[in-house]
Amino acid sequence: MRLLSFDKNGRPTPGIARDDRVLDLSALDPEMPRDWATLLAEDNLERLRALAEHAPAEHWVPRDGVKLALPIPDPPKILCAGLNYLSHAREVGMELPRHPILFARYKSSLVADGAPLVRPAASEKYDYESELVAVIGRAARNVPASRALDHVIGYSILNDGSLRDFQKKGGQWTLGKNFDRSGSFGPEIVTADGLPDGARGLRISATLNGETVQDGTTDDLIFDVATLVEAASEVMTLEPGTIIATGTPPGVGMARTPPLWLKPGDTIACTVQGIGTLENAVVAES
Amino acid sequence: MRLLSFDKNGRPTPGIARDDRVLDLSALDPEMPRDWATLLAEDNLERLRALAEHAPAEHWVPRDGVKLALPIPDPPKILCAGLNYLSHAREVGMELPRHPILFARYKSSLVADGAPLVRPAASEKYDYESELVAVIGRAARNVPASRALDHVIGYSILNDGSLRDFQKKGGQWTLGKNFDRSGSFGPEIVTADGLPDGARGLRISATLNGETVQDGTTDDLIFDVATLVEAASEVMTLEPGTIIATGTPPGVGMARTPPLWLKPGDTIACTVQGIGTLENAVVAES
Repeated sequence: MRLLSFDKNGRPTPGIARDDRVLDLSALDPEMPRDWATLLAEDNLERLRALAEHAPAEHWVPRDGVKLALPIPDPPKILCAGLNYLSHAREVGMELPRHPILFARYKSSLVADGAPLVRPAASEKYDYESELVAVIGRAARNVPASRALDHVIGYSILNDGSLRDFQKKGGQWTLGKNFDRSGSFGPEIVTADGLPDGARGLRISATLNGETVQDGTTDDLIFDVATLVEAASEVMTLEPGTIIATGTPPGVGMARTPPLWLKPGDTIACTVQGIGTLENAVVAES
Repeated sequence: MRLLSFDKNGRPTPGIARDDRVLDLSALDPEMPRDWATLLAEDNLERLRALAEHAPAEHWVPRDGVKLALPIPDPPKILCAGLNYLSHAREVGMELPRHPILFARYKSSLVADGAPLVRPAASEKYDYESELVAVIGRAARNVPASRALDHVIGYSILNDGSLRDFQKKGGQWTLGKNFDRSGSFGPEIVTADGLPDGARGLRISATLNGETVQDGTTDDLIFDVATLVEAASEVMTLEPGTIIATGTPPGVGMARTPPLWLKPGDTIACTVQGIGTLENAVVAES
């Protein structure tokens, strides 16, 4: 099943995607919570699947006609793993981590599929990072890796857009990873039952203006999805709707000679096999 | 004016504190937004001040009878400055920062004044950090330091509780700073008109079981409040209700020989002159 959110009268609304149509869940049941974080917390995916099966055709609207929102409009936590692909850690000349490295993005740093990314006025060192995202469905705290995937409801894609000079200021990455509208998340969440266990063995790539710039496989993750959930949940509660971006494969702009920075007019597309493609144009900060 | 939130039938509710009483704003006007982030966004502090002036005595309840919540129950952003007191940077043997170092805490890491802090099962290296907090009232983006204080509605206190071994894993501080219920925030927000400009020249201290362990002055901030707002807003929108913890003075447990770690049964109290005292007992993770 493919979960998304779309804009309805200025408000994000949950939907289910199938082929070229979207089921508007709020039209089926006006009492239904309007965000996937709450819907996932209610643990009623099977009910929604049944609803979708029996939904009248008029509630399936053409996908072309909707404007996507972030699949989860307001994730309780947005956690991102750093240096989590062997070959990426090598290309940027960093020591291999012995423990998952996690940092935080704020919601204000993310736009939906199709919305413009903003190259800020403060920096030109604007880089892309195509990433697999794990979405928490059932709250997790102190969950061992062996049971961690029970808490992952599905997977999506995140472009962990980074301003590399700001990422290096003082050694903490928070500023460089949190410019307004510098990253993206979407287009959809594919439920875990539609993908290999732990989303292993999926090709992950990025194209810049149609040319492949990143290409890897999720088999190269240093810390796999289950281990990331274990490490994060050892520290904090992962509420339903929490998303964990799992790191990026090689090919980022900062590792190239000369460096390759995103600039206004570019189109960056991040693809994970079986999940989809997250595509955004880049504009200058106005 | 002193702003706080308190628990009313299981829900945080905004109030105004004066002497030994609290004005229940929701009792005055049931239509009033129930959180300070929204109230601050509406920029109606003067209206609230007038309401408080004319509130019937029966809406002022004894302060002893209320259970405090986080002053802002769900801040849009919780930003924390690291290594921002000269003598603290020296005591931990770190290079002085040339740019503000900012990192993120999640709401789940913070408890209110009087609620127990939790020493987690995963680590015993549990440290305290008494900090002045700046509270954003009016949204800020790309605001120069010269105008930054116009966006600060008031000040509060944060204990930036840290698990030092986790803080060092991989170099990013996010994990070590985000154990569930490892920090605290409160008790109140003192509006900026009641304090020196930029909250300069205030004594800031901490006591552990009644003995002074941290003692400094906000005059020793490397990057002052205005500069922190400038640096953060150069990157991201600071929405109303965003809080910025400004770093800690010397005396933390990790800098002592032997190190001094918080343990179950301890009481840690953080004080900023003119704002108040934030006091919490420490319990073991159950």
